[in-house]
Amino acid sequence: MKILYFGGQKSGKSNLAEQKTLEISSKKPYYLATYDNSFNDKEMHKRVDKHKLQRKEQFTTIEEPKDLLKILKSGETFLVDCMSMWLFNNIQENEEYLINQLEEISKLDANIVFVLNDVNSGIIPFDNESRKFVDMTGIIGQKLAQICDEVYEVKLGLASRLK
Amino acid sequence: MKILYFGGQKSGKSNLAEQKTLEISSKKPYYLATYDNSFNDKEMHKRVDKHKLQRKEQFTTIEEPKDLLKILKSGETFLVDCMSMWLFNNIQENEEYLINQLEEISKLDANIVFVLNDVNSGIIPFDNESRKFVDMTGIIGQKLAQICDEVYEVKLGLASRLK
Amino acid sequence: MKILYFGGQKSGKSNLAEQKTLEISSKKPYYLATYDNSFNDKEMHKRVDKHKLQRKEQFTTIEEPKDLLKILKSGETFLVDCMSMWLFNNIQENEEYLINQLEEISKLDANIVFVLNDVNSGIIPFDNESRKFVDMTGIIGQKLAQICDEVYEVKLGLASRLK
Repeated sequence: MKILYFGGQKSGKSNLAEQKTLEISSKKPYYLATYDNSFNDKEMHKRVDKHKLQRKEQFTTIEEPKDLLKILKSGETFLVDCMSMWLFNNIQENEEYLINQLEEISKLDANIVFVLNDVNSGIIPFDNESRKFVDMTGIIGQKLAQICDEVYEVKLGLASRLK
Repeated sequence: MKILYFGGQKSGKSNLAEQKTLEISSKKPYYLATYDNSFNDKEMHKRVDKHKLQRKEQFTTIEEPKDLLKILKSGETFLVDCMSMWLFNNIQENEEYLINQLEEISKLDANIVFVLNDVNSGIIPFDNESRKFVDMTGIIGQKLAQICDEVYEVKLGLASRLK
Repeated sequence: MKILYFGGQKSGKSNLAEQKTLEISSKKPYYLATYDNSFNDKEMHKRVDKHKLQRKEQFTTIEEPKDLLKILKSGETFLVDCMSMWLFNNIQENEEYLINQLEEISKLDANIVFVLNDVNSGIIPFDNESRKFVDMTGIIGQKLAQICDEVYEVKLGLASRLK
């Protein structure tokens, strides 16, 4: 089963995705953290630490910023938090490669809960990089929604089912 | 019948609006492209070309950046893609003029499917022009929703009916 | 009863919140304006004036930019427009203080209709202040949704119930 939680900044999507992962998992699930530690961003470290504390001992954490297929495998349950960071880390790859990665992931007989940031409903940024990131989030997000059995939008900690 | 598809950047709204237009049309519908070619924006040209390919031969394309009432008429089916570009091209006009245009359009006995970008749910931009565009999108978008029989929000290629 | 209207810029949320406040109030309700007049922002003054005209004589207006508990009290009906401005005016306070304020408010036996801006679904702003405001809106917004009996998202003047 594949499930997507989609929402804005600090919408509570990770929290709901964590709960869902624990619910659908019969054994200890994996937490696949896509944050690239090599950036050394203090603000991000603080967020990561807060998240880690929240997750306590319920997940086995694995860090992998780029190649999800190296980690994901059939027969296990994974929470991938988050796909936006994965996309950001792969922004130099072409669209077809990323779409293909999602198709490969869809073939796995695993429970995977994905988290994706909604960055698409504000004013279109002027700089090319932000624009590309927004566009790719939309394109890759549509594909991700397509391969998922359930899609939830999260606002203010409240989930609405889109699919 | 008037229908509005509203969604963020790369949400899949144009695609769903195209499908809907073809569904409700008994003869070949018109595609009213509001993109102003005079800007000569390469990035935009690439998007326009990709869209044109997707539409193939199913629509008769007409380009009109500003005056929709010059093209829209009773007895036909139109897809207007998109109202955000029309608004952008008319940003120097006052609110009353634009509201009035929508009221005139609402009187036409035509099938019209509108597409509008959601730019209203991010941080408020600092510059006056962006702020004006965001505000006008909200004001004109509310009027547009009012004159439409059906309103859909699109996220990740998935439509939710708002009206 | 506590009710939250949440939506983007110019989504029509204040208008719907005003109607709801009048509906649930058995006597003249209070309009608690959180706008801080000391900023002397012309654009904001124009908005405030337009709002005031719309509200006519149906509300008793009180201005309080920071300390809502100085004004809110049991036995009355209030429209707080808006919580984003209150948050902005309190941005130097810590998260715990603000969460605690909301907990105190939740204990009041009053009808309170809150308005909150959705600023969380666009690209994450680069500057620290905007980022902090976006994050705090998400965190405080989740708490606000939690203490409310009803939560509505407003898009294009159309409300969808989230809770």
